[in-house]
Amino acid sequence: MVDSIRVALLGAGTVGSQTARLIVEQADELERRVGARVELAGVAVLDPSQISDPWIDRALLTDQTLELTERDDVDIVVELIGGLEPARTFVLSALNHGASVVTANKALLAKHGPELYEAARKNGVDIYFEAAVGGAIPIVRPLRESMTGDRITRIMGIVNGTTNYILDEMTTKGLDFATVLKDAQAKGFAEADPTADIGGFDAAAKAAIMATLAFHRDVRMDDVHVEGIEHVTDSDIAAARAMNRVIKLLAVVEQDSENGAISAGVYPVMLPADHQLAKVSGSFNAVFVEGEASDDLMFYGRGAGGAPTASAVAGDIVTVARHRVAGTTGPDIPLYSQAPMADAADGESSYMLRLSVADNVGVLAKVSEIFANHGVSIRALQQLPDEDEQGNHELWITTHSVTDRVIRETAEDVAQAKDTSSVLSIMRVFEDAQ
Amino acid sequence: MVDSIRVALLGAGTVGSQTARLIVEQADELERRVGARVELAGVAVLDPSQISDPWIDRALLTDQTLELTERDDVDIVVELIGGLEPARTFVLSALNHGASVVTANKALLAKHGPELYEAARKNGVDIYFEAAVGGAIPIVRPLRESMTGDRITRIMGIVNGTTNYILDEMTTKGLDFATVLKDAQAKGFAEADPTADIGGFDAAAKAAIMATLAFHRDVRMDDVHVEGIEHVTDSDIAAARAMNRVIKLLAVVEQDSENGAISAGVYPVMLPADHQLAKVSGSFNAVFVEGEASDDLMFYGRGAGGAPTASAVAGDIVTVARHRVAGTTGPDIPLYSQAPMADAADGESSYMLRLSVADNVGVLAKVSEIFANHGVSIRALQQLPDEDEQGNHELWITTHSVTDRVIRETAEDVAQAKDTSSVLSIMRVFEDAQ
Repeated sequence: MVDSIRVALLGAGTVGSQTARLIVEQADELERRVGARVELAGVAVLDPSQISDPWIDRALLTDQTLELTERDDVDIVVELIGGLEPARTFVLSALNHGASVVTANKALLAKHGPELYEAARKNGVDIYFEAAVGGAIPIVRPLRESMTGDRITRIMGIVNGTTNYILDEMTTKGLDFATVLKDAQAKGFAEADPTADIGGFDAAAKAAIMATLAFHRDVRMDDVHVEGIEHVTDSDIAAARAMNRVIKLLAVVEQDSENGAISAGVYPVMLPADHQLAKVSGSFNAVFVEGEASDDLMFYGRGAGGAPTASAVAGDIVTVARHRVAGTTGPDIPLYSQAPMADAADGESSYMLRLSVADNVGVLAKVSEIFANHGVSIRALQQLPDEDEQGNHELWITTHSVTDRVIRETAEDVAQAKDTSSVLSIMRVFEDAQ
Repeated sequence: MVDSIRVALLGAGTVGSQTARLIVEQADELERRVGARVELAGVAVLDPSQISDPWIDRALLTDQTLELTERDDVDIVVELIGGLEPARTFVLSALNHGASVVTANKALLAKHGPELYEAARKNGVDIYFEAAVGGAIPIVRPLRESMTGDRITRIMGIVNGTTNYILDEMTTKGLDFATVLKDAQAKGFAEADPTADIGGFDAAAKAAIMATLAFHRDVRMDDVHVEGIEHVTDSDIAAARAMNRVIKLLAVVEQDSENGAISAGVYPVMLPADHQLAKVSGSFNAVFVEGEASDDLMFYGRGAGGAPTASAVAGDIVTVARHRVAGTTGPDIPLYSQAPMADAADGESSYMLRLSVADNVGVLAKVSEIFANHGVSIRALQQLPDEDEQGNHELWITTHSVTDRVIRETAEDVAQAKDTSSVLSIMRVFEDAQ
């Protein structure tokens, strides 16, 4: 008979603090849900003197993290430090000392996940990480359990709130990227070093985790093709708007139904303005999951923030605590698939290219010929009336479906023809309605 | 070491047939996910000679259901018969003989759920029912596990595809209820006896299940206040459209943050046309969940249909099979809350009333006085220019928030004033943006 489940918290930032609050404020409720008292056993932080949350007993604070992860009386270690090291060392220490782990650390899982899952399995403990993807949104558990009787074909989502906020602001206020980023940083919606977010790396980590769960294959950060939003200009946004489209940074993972190859990518995409993902605004996240039998599912909610993320962490704590009380663990993460990773250059999509072309007779014919030479079929073409200072016009070309490799080669040839044309931007266009 | 998990299927209709297909066609995949072979042990149907699905081995067919549920070599009984009896007898037989149960039977769970959960707990087996609410949408597992570290405040959803389809057709095609119902029946989107759907009872069963999981209290079908769509007229639809609103049948369960009282209801509601639920069309379902920490979450997908529902059933089979292999069970469903059920008459909402009023001086004053006498504050009032054959005009009144009791009393007084006015319809209006 287990009387209490003792939880060690690593990190007491916005998520850690809210997690502590949920555990302490809901102690009676959680006890009845779990069948044992859920208590904080310790809270490890860099500087205990900086912590003043009323729900964190100061006697529990320590800066000796490894002492906490090694303690025999700790059942669950909740890692909310983020980053690769020392988080990885702490998580492994916890698992190897017989504690289950709850973590929100997508970077760690996207880099070392399979080793950590194996360490948990070997030690007969749990590792749960609902908060690592989509903040408050239950997406990990549905992929890990609810959909395991089906064949997932594709997952497509907005999984980074910072970039979604920035693109949103650029779209609704007509501001340029640098201005919006600066404002987002001032408001705390973007980090001082925003590279992980705007470079697409945070979304890529989440893509790797989702692909691993969906396709039962070891997919890492390095397997994900990443393009961020740093090159998205206000002119791209204006062009999208003129075409009744919206630009979103999407994480897309899919498995080819014919050859089984898995692809995982993060890139800005132009979506029809009435697409469900086009309407996901600000810091909200949304994930579409397509299954062979389930058809389309969508999960939507707050992708970040202290309390929302803590909601997911606390749900994992309750789940893992119940397992400890029952003397069991949840399902492990079976990674049996040997499916190949697709080459990102083979990925197919429609594209929109913004070109700058000289205003002379024959330039359209020349550009069209370059596209034709590469076998790229043009779906729509539009030349803007306005001239720039050099007397050039913008030319917008939307293609039919073509591989990434071919569109890059085509764009290179267009860029070569310097006397007549240059490439302003290339962006994927998804037209399938949702 | 468990070599195989043997599954008995009760019922081989559209969902049963697709469940069998997923098990048989994905046998190798499921074996690697579960760690043991998942096999059909038997398929009980009323008339085995009627079954011709290529993936169901004819040797497995039987019409002796209890022989199947009592067999020692059956690990999981999948109940897809529906209805109260004999489904309840079969499920209890399975649980009492040591088999875990997977069911999609919302009517059974809304009526006898807590007894069945207790029977499962007592016998040390699982009862899983993801498909009972929202078809393919993972909503049961998120409520049962993901959100158990948070306090759920409200759930609001479109959980019946038939009524959503009918209201959709009435809205987009301007047809009346009877015409659309007949067409839906011809197309197989509505049952020959459509009472359970259009009367709101199917949605009410789902509301009871969601309330039970969310609030940890025994909430049954009889606790749910039910209004169907059978009285929704094309005039109501037209009035909604004129106000830029859409009529949806919603299941709403909530817990009062002050007195803890739980309310559960199903009723047609006018939503702003740009509300996320307003855009859920046809047979799709969508469920909003509001948590204290998580904030708004939305789950969206196919609420019915053979393959989508089978996706949820198969996910439960895998989950339960993994538990059998590990010699454990999932969390039980703790129903510790003694919170009172709120009286539906105390439920507050804005309302829209459509009245028919005589075209004479003073009628507006008289109607306004009745509302004022009941303390009902009018937010908007609109008199239509057109006269009917009796020379009466339609008067649309939208109120501020008021209890159901008071609006009914007010409407009764309006109806009493027969010489001047009568009540055409009363409907809730939700204005809060999502």
